[in-house]
Amino acid sequence: MRNPQINRHGKLQHLLTTEGLPREIITTILDAAAPFAEVAEREVKKLPLMRGKSIFNLFFENSTRTRTTFEIAAKRLSADVINLNINTSSAAKGETLLDTVDNLSAMQADMFVVRHASSGAPYLIAEHLAATGRDHIHVVNAGDGRHAHPTQGLLDMYTIRHYKRDFTSLTVAIVGDVLHSRVARSQIHAMTTLGVAEIRVIAPQTLLPTNVERMGVRVFHNIDEGLRGVDVVMMLRLQNERMQGALLPSPQEYFKSYGLTPERLALAKPDAIVMHPGPMNRGVEIDSAVADGTHAVILPQVTFGIAVRMAVMSMLAGGA
Amino acid sequence: MRNPQINRHGKLQHLLTTEGLPREIITTILDAAAPFAEVAEREVKKLPLMRGKSIFNLFFENSTRTRTTFEIAAKRLSADVINLNINTSSAAKGETLLDTVDNLSAMQADMFVVRHASSGAPYLIAEHLAATGRDHIHVVNAGDGRHAHPTQGLLDMYTIRHYKRDFTSLTVAIVGDVLHSRVARSQIHAMTTLGVAEIRVIAPQTLLPTNVERMGVRVFHNIDEGLRGVDVVMMLRLQNERMQGALLPSPQEYFKSYGLTPERLALAKPDAIVMHPGPMNRGVEIDSAVADGTHAVILPQVTFGIAVRMAVMSMLAGGA
Amino acid sequence: MRNPQINRHGKLQHLLTTEGLPREIITTILDAAAPFAEVAEREVKKLPLMRGKSIFNLFFENSTRTRTTFEIAAKRLSADVINLNINTSSAAKGETLLDTVDNLSAMQADMFVVRHASSGAPYLIAEHLAATGRDHIHVVNAGDGRHAHPTQGLLDMYTIRHYKRDFTSLTVAIVGDVLHSRVARSQIHAMTTLGVAEIRVIAPQTLLPTNVERMGVRVFHNIDEGLRGVDVVMMLRLQNERMQGALLPSPQEYFKSYGLTPERLALAKPDAIVMHPGPMNRGVEIDSAVADGTHAVILPQVTFGIAVRMAVMSMLAGGA
Repeated sequence: MRNPQINRHGKLQHLLTTEGLPREIITTILDAAAPFAEVAEREVKKLPLMRGKSIFNLFFENSTRTRTTFEIAAKRLSADVINLNINTSSAAKGETLLDTVDNLSAMQADMFVVRHASSGAPYLIAEHLAATGRDHIHVVNAGDGRHAHPTQGLLDMYTIRHYKRDFTSLTVAIVGDVLHSRVARSQIHAMTTLGVAEIRVIAPQTLLPTNVERMGVRVFHNIDEGLRGVDVVMMLRLQNERMQGALLPSPQEYFKSYGLTPERLALAKPDAIVMHPGPMNRGVEIDSAVADGTHAVILPQVTFGIAVRMAVMSMLAGGA
Repeated sequence: MRNPQINRHGKLQHLLTTEGLPREIITTILDAAAPFAEVAEREVKKLPLMRGKSIFNLFFENSTRTRTTFEIAAKRLSADVINLNINTSSAAKGETLLDTVDNLSAMQADMFVVRHASSGAPYLIAEHLAATGRDHIHVVNAGDGRHAHPTQGLLDMYTIRHYKRDFTSLTVAIVGDVLHSRVARSQIHAMTTLGVAEIRVIAPQTLLPTNVERMGVRVFHNIDEGLRGVDVVMMLRLQNERMQGALLPSPQEYFKSYGLTPERLALAKPDAIVMHPGPMNRGVEIDSAVADGTHAVILPQVTFGIAVRMAVMSMLAGGA
Repeated sequence: MRNPQINRHGKLQHLLTTEGLPREIITTILDAAAPFAEVAEREVKKLPLMRGKSIFNLFFENSTRTRTTFEIAAKRLSADVINLNINTSSAAKGETLLDTVDNLSAMQADMFVVRHASSGAPYLIAEHLAATGRDHIHVVNAGDGRHAHPTQGLLDMYTIRHYKRDFTSLTVAIVGDVLHSRVARSQIHAMTTLGVAEIRVIAPQTLLPTNVERMGVRVFHNIDEGLRGVDVVMMLRLQNERMQGALLPSPQEYFKSYGLTPERLALAKPDAIVMHPGPMNRGVEIDSAVADGTHAVILPQVTFGIAVRMAVMSMLAGGA
């Protein structure tokens, strides 16, 4: 498979996935994000880096939260942002995805932030832009199907680096529905590239992809065993819709077996951090005592997420 | 009950209600609004007072009109505005109100404009911000349940002062569904603080709160008697949903008994002004001849509303 | 019928229709659009021409695509844009169209961009603004019922002029559902004023207005005959809803009789251009080989559309 996100000069052309993203590019993004995290503390949080640029939030799948993070990041870079919830517009009129993209490109778009229920939709757009000679337009994947959510993966790396400095000595556990999680995939690929010593996944067999070990992770079905001695616990959100299928008995049962409680967290290292991509299901995958406790870095994740998105967008726009 | 809207230096920290809002703060807001009303007439209506600030319109209850007034006011102050209709987003995903607030706070929000169907929701948010040490984030109540709609109350005070100068000599009548009206509550509290000589409420018993007299108002069930000699008539919007219940017979019956007609208005002082918070039900609570007549100051209310909201937002952001 | 879009100094007051729009004003708009088309290629696409102006996108009929073109155009002119989808707001609360307009006017609106399912709604607004002495507020019709879509008509003229230079020597064919098309009406009026030599309409009798010849067009029911020797082919979108009625047999049948294929296009002049207002129904009114072929100027239409809208808005705002 090609890697359309890196251009022929080895620079970031699009951000589609953390899989195969070179370590130096990840590091450059994390380094670039740091000053933006400081910007957020200033009186005036705006920078003129993307003034006059037109960013389209193309959300074929509804997600106010993720759309908001990109919208804020873009506005703080002084870009013009246009929000498009496509399920309620052209798509309903029968227009194809690529016709929509062609149209918005013709409106002189500079960047598409794409969320789509189908894995690969942002790739399709990126390849179409290349095939039609529009290399000046950049694509950021804001979540595609079960495939990838790279800005989430990168903000998680920023968070880990912020609290733990070095990746190569860490043991990290990902807990929950890995099977359906684009977040988990993006985390695993980024951590592998950054040299995390041991990546564990903790879940019932029904919520793990077949042959998940091939991704370079250690599998645990027992959460107590899986958490023992870890430096970082990355919780996944349990999608409500999973509850209705045959995959899981009930939220209560799930919490009993895999919910992160203070007792379980005590099995991890004393200075372990707890992460969650949000929104949280309190009492399902995470106990409120943990969510609001001293180990949780869930809100800093959000803050770093804005900075990482500002870094990605300004790097792409600047041709960095 | 505490008053979290005033900070320990006696300054406005949040705007949650006109109840208990000190007279000097109300007067300061009205004074601050005056130059903004003039700004609206300039060629370039923008001021840089909130440049780089992030304002979130958190509308848990849909209201395009009110949201628009805050959005315009914020944009004229050069703030970045993010509109969130929460019923269609995180709330649907089961996230709690305070988790949503924590998240947006972590995105470096500077201000929340909150509309919620539940009375007290903006208080809950304000108290949570205080409890978590985020005093730099301000809350403006844009209407909570039946409780309060303070910017509407304040713009009404601005309107009265504009046309009548002095509050202490006035007789003011509020006509309509006081029972369900947060607008009426905010008006009554503000007028009481500003020393309005006589406040009347005119409505059928079914549309008045029990013991409404305790708020310091005179009750009239007969509109002709109630309007006699008043300086100001404040009409309330009759919610359509009230018509279907047992509270009211029909729009026609209501108009016959409580609709403001030119004949009835003639009972008020010759220079009486007629106000309405909008949107109007013409032919239900108000006759078109009055709505479009020379006594009506309904559109100036809208104009002053933008100025008052600009004043409130810039005062909060400036720590005034 | 009066022409409220031209003021007493002969200048453009509103843009409501291309019908009766003087040739010199059309030409002025097209000339004014040219530099804006270049602006779109610059690094910073923003101009300060409408800084501090408040533009309201009043969409009583949903259209993300058209709304987006106006939103981008306004933002590139540095205006503040407020999007209002009115079907879900005040209108639902029973407020009249003109009360909504009065309200937004009182919020110091500078311009209304109006889309409405009823023919004439933008006229009603324009006349109301005149009657109430608010000549400083301008109206742009973004599509009203079957009546007019003047910015589409003008961007089509820009496109034709760009590729063909002179209008007076051209033969132009409009193909499809002329009966229900505001686009076709706006195109025909503009082309008539600009002196296009021959305008043809090609459609089954059921999709043509009665007495369409009176508009100065030649009628063809056979597409092969109609396309012979034309310089410009303007395709119309076939609304899906027409398929369900008695007007048309099926999409397949329609394509067989009226779909634009490469074979049919070969009957036109060798340098003929193919236009489409979008969104396209590939395989219904147009073959993909044509839509993506060398004769198609469908995407340039979109680009020019932004420039034409910037020209119209800045001319109106500048009192030009």
